[in-house]
This record gives sequence, structure tokens and C-alpha cells, in this order.
Amino acid sequence: MKTTFLYKSDPARGRLWAEVFRRRAPDIDFRIWPDIGDPAQVRFLAAWEPPDDLATRFPNLQVLFSSGAGVDQFDFASLPPALPVVRMVEPGIVRGMVEYVTHAVLGLHRDMPQYRRQQQEGLWKPLPVRTARERCVGVLGLGSLGQAVLEQLVALGFDCAGWSRSRHEVAGVQCHAGADELPAFLARTGILVCLLPLTDSTRGFLDARLFSQLPEGAGLVHVGRGPQLVDADLLAALESGRIGDAVLDVTDPEPLPPEHAFWRHPRIHLTPHIASMTQPLSAAEVVLDNLECFEAGKPMLGLVDRARGY
Amino acid sequence: MKTTFLYKSDPARGRLWAEVFRRRAPDIDFRIWPDIGDPAQVRFLAAWEPPDDLATRFPNLQVLFSSGAGVDQFDFASLPPALPVVRMVEPGIVRGMVEYVTHAVLGLHRDMPQYRRQQQEGLWKPLPVRTARERCVGVLGLGSLGQAVLEQLVALGFDCAGWSRSRHEVAGVQCHAGADELPAFLARTGILVCLLPLTDSTRGFLDARLFSQLPEGAGLVHVGRGPQLVDADLLAALESGRIGDAVLDVTDPEPLPPEHAFWRHPRIHLTPHIASMTQPLSAAEVVLDNLECFEAGKPMLGLVDRARGY
Repeated sequence: MKTTFLYKSDPARGRLWAEVFRRRAPDIDFRIWPDIGDPAQVRFLAAWEPPDDLATRFPNLQVLFSSGAGVDQFDFASLPPALPVVRMVEPGIVRGMVEYVTHAVLGLHRDMPQYRRQQQEGLWKPLPVRTARERCVGVLGLGSLGQAVLEQLVALGFDCAGWSRSRHEVAGVQCHAGADELPAFLARTGILVCLLPLTDSTRGFLDARLFSQLPEGAGLVHVGRGPQLVDADLLAALESGRIGDAVLDVTDPEPLPPEHAFWRHPRIHLTPHIASMTQPLSAAEVVLDNLECFEAGKPMLGLVDRARGY
Repeated sequence: MKTTFLYKSDPARGRLWAEVFRRRAPDIDFRIWPDIGDPAQVRFLAAWEPPDDLATRFPNLQVLFSSGAGVDQFDFASLPPALPVVRMVEPGIVRGMVEYVTHAVLGLHRDMPQYRRQQQEGLWKPLPVRTARERCVGVLGLGSLGQAVLEQLVALGFDCAGWSRSRHEVAGVQCHAGADELPAFLARTGILVCLLPLTDSTRGFLDARLFSQLPEGAGLVHVGRGPQLVDADLLAALESGRIGDAVLDVTDPEPLPPEHAFWRHPRIHLTPHIASMTQPLSAAEVVLDNLECFEAGKPMLGLVDRARGY
């Protein structure tokens, strides 16, 4: 029986995937939703939002690939329990995230938000400079994105620390693990970068209690997921001066509604979830690599541990 | 006879120099202007603005050090012709410049100015993403600062080129030299970084003729010297769309007068000459290294070629 790889995400990007599949895997019938062909032939699905009736509609589905970095948009309860689910881990996502976070951290480090406000006031006033070595940057989340971001920040000379649920080691970075070591990590962190995956235990993680443990005037770069941030607590922390400036690429919901207070806050710097985008060509290559691993019985890159949720 | 090293620049920074001299060169009488002691003992002077009567006041002066990266603030005609003049080449200046330019280039690359305008309008709208490999960054000036900046931009994956008056080679960078090769360099440059020294031949270098050779919508990062930019030509290039956004750390004059059009231009992003600051401790170490070279008859780092002007 012929194998169909079904793609259900942005069609323009899908056409770039199709080129890669045509070249590297001409035997696979690559189809873009809604042109699904024979549902019984669909063994592989790449989707951002899978169809609700996935289990009954595609009885022979063997792997579900997320077309983006996260899988928190999936309703795991509605998916067949044994179906392997694979996150997108590809170099395009990593490079985009390194660019965005490096820009945001350097901007906070060098007081760029304050210089923008001074420009609006017509004020020419150099501010005291700190060296990167004197600036403690802390990254929440030490997966492939967190590690790549830290590698760049270490190269720039920042005093770097990381925190994750389980123990990690990253060259040149003071790594903290688990709830017990969170207070020490926060106490030293002048610029906090959130790169955590969205799970039940990270929902609402960035709250008043966490902010209260940061040094006065800390910077925040939030590139995780919108629901990890308690909006009212951020506004209060900005009001009190605990947080100096916040760079947010994610919100809850997205798009952020027009009446939301974040839009017009002078110390909140918003981008519309653009920090990191899957690059279609390299994403298709990574998925094809994973298909080869799957067919050979080898582990796939980005395979989700459903108990952890990422 | 005792040797005096006289420091004539910001006194707070001078006190940090004094600590380094006390530790490393206790035999030298380190003095901070206006406490000059016996003028006949002054063999070395570090200054941003040397006194007008330098030649007569300090008859035994042997080396003039600039306390900052540039020497364009010196009036060479008023200095003794044989007096060696040394620019400040120290790691603090380099690191600061790498931070500033990396931030500015990443910001233009990732459309941050446009996202800031969209935030002001309450508009949630992702813009098309280009990879760093698809973005041509061009650096004018391939001295120690230009080379350090390019090393970081190459590491981020940008398609990098450089231009300088004389031939240079930089790993991973397409290097152009001289007036003949300037048009080819400009034609490929999507983001232009100016790191040229101020000399007679670079005054007014960033003018309408140069801008007209850039691709439509190019970005400009100006971290050279204010008089290199023809202000009216930049405003016209922004108006026509030839330049998309301009990040300016230097202006002419400085501070920029309150009525100047740059302050309120929505596509000009101003900082008050803060890209790179001499770090007092490492600057003093570099000067002491140079004193040792001088006493040993070896070449000093940053010695100015007066014919070139830098």
C-alpha cells in the first residue's frame, strides 16, 4: 500500500516541504490538507492543529509531527495513547530564537528602552555602562533552544546561569535544577529569559512570587508561551520597579486583544510571536530524517514524553 | 628625574587608572589634571582634549595617549610634529562596540523598528522572516573594531562584507578595498555599518551619492563619527525609502541640538554616543603595556600614522 504524508499547516510553507519530499522521498505521496487522498494511506501527519477526529479518520496513522516548536496546542487526551508525537527541532527555529533573545538581552543590557524614551523627550544623556561580565543573565529552560541561546550569551561575555526542572550541564553556565534551586537562580538574575515549554507545571510560572525574588529593576524576556505569564502580576512588578522593562513575544491570548494594557505600556515591548519560525526547507529535511529513524526503529529527534508534556 | 604620567580626562575614571598605576608602576608619579606637579617631569599625557599650550607647557613630553578610541578631536597642527600619538585600543572599547552593533544589526534584521511602530498602532502582524544567511551586512572600516564586529556577525550567520581604504582580509568576509570597489560593496549591502575613522577623506562620506548605491530600504548603523554623515541626505534617503531605518550613535554636533530633525524622526533611532566606552581599568593596563613597549623601543599598539590621520 502506498504511504501518504499529510501536511496540515500553512499551505505556502507546505509547498516548500513538497519540494524537499519530491527530491528526497519520491515514493511518499506528500499531500497538503484538505487534499487528503485515501485516509487509510495516511501513515504520517504534520500539523499545527490536528483534526479532532484524527483517530477515526486516519486509522493507520503512525506518527504525528508538530509543524512548530511547541506541542502545547495538541489536546493529548484526544490523541490515541500509543501514537508517537514529535516536536519540531530544526536549525531554523534555533537560529531565529538565538537572534531574538540576543537582541533582547543586549537591548536591556545596554539600556536601549531608556534611550528610546530619552529620544522621545529630546534628552541627550549617556547612562552608566556595565560590562557584560557584570551582568547576570538567567535562562529558564535548558532544552535545545535554551542551550543555543546560552552559548551565544556566554560568547558575548555575560555572566550566565540556567534553570530547568531536571539537571543539565551547559559549558560556562551555572546550572540550577528543580524547585529547591530556583530562589538562588532568581536572586542573581538581572535579565531573566523564559524559554520553558508550556505544561501544567509552568502555567502561571511567571507570577508575583517569582518576580519578588528577582533583583530590583530586573529585565524580562518572555519567549516561552503566553499562559506562563500572569499579566496582572507583571503590570504590578513594572509598577513597583521590581521589573524594569519586559520584552514579550508571546501573550495569552494571541493576537493580544486591542484593549489589553500591554499594548500601550511604556516599559513593555511587544512582538507578535515572531521570535522563532520554523524554516520550511530545513523543517522538511528534519522530518524526513526522523522518518528514516522511525522506519529503522531508531529514536526520533524531538519525540515527546507525554508524562512530561514536552 | 622623576617621571610624571598626567591624566586629563574624566576624574572619576582617572582615579581607577591611578589604582592600576599604583599597583603596576609605583615608580611613576600618576597625576590627575589640574594637579600637574612639576611640568618638566611630565613625560606622558593621556587626554581627550590636550591643553592648547602643550608643547611649551610640557617641554619633556614624549607620548600623547588619547583617552578614547578616536584621535579626531586632536588638532594635529598644534602638536609637536615628532610627538608620538597613540589611539586607545583596549578590550572594553571593542566589547562595547560589538554589543552595540550586534544589537542594532539584529534589530534591523528582525524588523524591530517596524514592530515598535505596530505596537504603537495596536497592530498584531507578523512580518516575513529572512534568515541571517539571506541578509547582507556590510561594514565600512576594517580596523580592530570592524574586525571584531564582523567576527560576531559571521558567527550569527550573516552574509558579511567589508570595505576599507587599504586591503584587509577577514575570515568569512568578502573584503573590498578602495574607491574602485566601493560600488560593488554598496550594491550588495542590505544593512550598512559605518565604523570609519574621521579623516579629511571620510568627512561627509555618508551622502546622497553613497546612499543611492544601496539597495532599496537598506538599514544604516552609524557608529563612526558625526561629521561623516550629511544629515540632509539621510533625511532625503529616508523620505525616498532608499534607507528604511537608521540607528545613529554619533551626530554633529554632540549633544544634538533640541531643534534637530533627527530627534523626532520615526525611522531614526538615536543614542547619545554610548556605543563604546573605554573601560578605565583595562584602558590603564593597555597604556602601561604601551609604556613598557615605548621604554623598550618596541612599537606601541594604536600608534597613529599622522599622514593617514588614524
